Amino acid sequence: MPLPPLKLLSNRHVTVDFHRTRDRGFIVVPMTFTRREFAKLGALGFAARFAPPLFAQTTQRQTGYAIIGLGRIADIFMRGVKDSPNSKVTALVSGHRDKALRIAADYGVPESSIYSYDDFDSIVSNKTVDAVYVALPNSMHADFTIRAAKAGKHVLCEKPMAINVGECESMIAACKSASVKLMIAYRCHYESTNLKAVDLIRSGALGQVQAIETAFGFNERAGEWRLDKKLSGGGPLVDVGIYSLNATRYLTGEEPVSFSAFSSVIDQDGRFTSVEENLSWTMKFPSGVVASCATTYGGWMGGFFKVHGAKGWIDADPAFNYDGLHLHAQYSTDVGEFPHTVVDEANPQKNPYQFTAQANHFSNCIQNNLEPKTPGEEGLRDMSYITEIYRAAGISML
Amino acid sequence: MPLPPLKLLSNRHVTVDFHRTRDRGFIVVPMTFTRREFAKLGALGFAARFAPPLFAQTTQRQTGYAIIGLGRIADIFMRGVKDSPNSKVTALVSGHRDKALRIAADYGVPESSIYSYDDFDSIVSNKTVDAVYVALPNSMHADFTIRAAKAGKHVLCEKPMAINVGECESMIAACKSASVKLMIAYRCHYESTNLKAVDLIRSGALGQVQAIETAFGFNERAGEWRLDKKLSGGGPLVDVGIYSLNATRYLTGEEPVSFSAFSSVIDQDGRFTSVEENLSWTMKFPSGVVASCATTYGGWMGGFFKVHGAKGWIDADPAFNYDGLHLHAQYSTDVGEFPHTVVDEANPQKNPYQFTAQANHFSNCIQNNLEPKTPGEEGLRDMSYITEIYRAAGISML
Repeated sequence: MPLPPLKLLSNRHVTVDFHRTRDRGFIVVPMTFTRREFAKLGALGFAARFAPPLFAQTTQRQTGYAIIGLGRIADIFMRGVKDSPNSKVTALVSGHRDKALRIAADYGVPESSIYSYDDFDSIVSNKTVDAVYVALPNSMHADFTIRAAKAGKHVLCEKPMAINVGECESMIAACKSASVKLMIAYRCHYESTNLKAVDLIRSGALGQVQAIETAFGFNERAGEWRLDKKLSGGGPLVDVGIYSLNATRYLTGEEPVSFSAFSSVIDQDGRFTSVEENLSWTMKFPSGVVASCATTYGGWMGGFFKVHGAKGWIDADPAFNYDGLHLHAQYSTDVGEFPHTVVDEANPQKNPYQFTAQANHFSNCIQNNLEPKTPGEEGLRDMSYITEIYRAAGISML
Repeated sequence: MPLPPLKLLSNRHVTVDFHRTRDRGFIVVPMTFTRREFAKLGALGFAARFAPPLFAQTTQRQTGYAIIGLGRIADIFMRGVKDSPNSKVTALVSGHRDKALRIAADYGVPESSIYSYDDFDSIVSNKTVDAVYVALPNSMHADFTIRAAKAGKHVLCEKPMAINVGECESMIAACKSASVKLMIAYRCHYESTNLKAVDLIRSGALGQVQAIETAFGFNERAGEWRLDKKLSGGGPLVDVGIYSLNATRYLTGEEPVSFSAFSSVIDQDGRFTSVEENLSWTMKFPSGVVASCATTYGGWMGGFFKVHGAKGWIDADPAFNYDGLHLHAQYSTDVGEFPHTVVDEANPQKNPYQFTAQANHFSNCIQNNLEPKTPGEEGLRDMSYITEIYRAAGISML
């Protein structure tokens, strides 16, 4: 049965991998289902009962990715790509050839598609590579994004996009000039619990949003590259605090206009000679929404957000983990009425589902010439706000 | 069986009302039990098994309270006093004599002990009144505290202590000069879930505390006196945000030294002509601990605190309600180890248990000439920090 092309991963439509069949074929939701409509069907049990007759298997174009940097997040991304119908790992870029060879075997990447950082530019002639996934230390994002663009490859770059605003602007310019797409890997934009929170707010269920609290942090081990400002460009703010910063923006749909911040280093154990240990900051948005945020590399914080509206609230905790996300919300139909409608949803999806959705989205953008939902400009905005937050805390950037 | 006097409500000892018997007699825990020791016994099941032989009933001196202002919180306080072994409602002060007469009947207060605001000063000759409980709009706290002190009565005053630092200083001076005790009704200092959180932190279970998030707010109805700055002295910050402010101090055991804040009025519905609707603020403590806080009169926020340490975390939510408090904590024995010891405690005690513990404490201080755990100086400190927070937000105080 012929099916329309896969254009399902725009802002408003369901992710197709949700209905993938076990035999690694895949099934497609007709274009007429928006994400919200589909959620309604799901809530009524219709999706499970009537979905099979609506769907069928087909074959799919696969965007080939070169993975640049083979650390922990690259491993998860590659596993996510394995679950993606429209994406494939086709090349590896690493300083450790042995490691690359082992991973190449796992993903069916030919030895000829393994590159070092030095010979990376020869990737220009590799026809199996449509795009690169940049999972390097932050200070190397700009260089490899620009080199990839020059090689004619689309770029999916991890967050933080780079280490300062100037680098972000150069990356955007390079991709524009090379006519390649640039997407920043803000996985929460493609994650169903976060999208559900956004939907609840946009639907008006919470009434006028007034305030948000959000934090994300952890106790970082000594010796990690993240603790070296030359590589990371900053401390927990650029690494995990950026999730909270970005969340305040997608939750409100607004851009912050005022910033205040305090940072500190408490533990004098050699970890925090170049980056902050703790950072607590506040932002104000044009509507008057205020946000209280925090991040740390010195304690167990997890990641959460709480949204407070005139008619109800949302508590997502954990909100930013790879899986196990939990959404708790309560709201009423009228302002003043005690919030009585309860949403309490544990997201059963397992890591690497967010990375699959992200790969699905970018591959779909490439294949159908669509603008990614989180383009370079999204990363640039966060970087400009990070600059403001660090400035308020008295911290200079590289 | 004769028992030592009831001196159990100091910082380190168990609250006696926890073991009150049903017949409204009461039982006393011997002085050798600290709160922590008793908790350990409880955890081992010893308290339940061996407590009866250790305890016995006795009679108790009762401190007589005049209740000034008969609103909602006064009602709860009086119910709390009813459950207190060492406290009693002996007089009422109100602008509504009918209401006062009804309540007097409930509490066995003679008609001769009902006062208006105008004839309040004649309370000096009422020997049944040892202390007053000031539950008036904030702008009247200073006046009635000073008048009560002049009448030789001890003063338990609701928070916020007053509407500015100068008033707080005058109240402290008046009580000192009259040799009466002054306590501010910070009920969470006498509440077992909050005390448990403090204990966990002081015990070192969380390791070095790095950051705190806390918020408390609600959607205030039009027409309430709290929305009139002349009566309240401020918006949600002085009313409920003060719980978060105070919590950061008792949780850390430190005094904040730096403040930043943003405030806003979003709803143009006539409620926020004189006080802020939302306020989001950040504080830094001498150790480097940072705190992110928020309050609102425009949305459903509830009240919570989260404490993040090197070895674990605490999430108290709700933390500031009258009952139903919930403490969730997780910590490990070593820094770096994933927090594996789980505390998940729903506090079964029912409103007005916090008000009982508070009355117990102040009456005990009066009867045994002890300094209250939350004296006027505690209220003054919060008022000085509120001044700093408002200054940072560009809000002037009365």
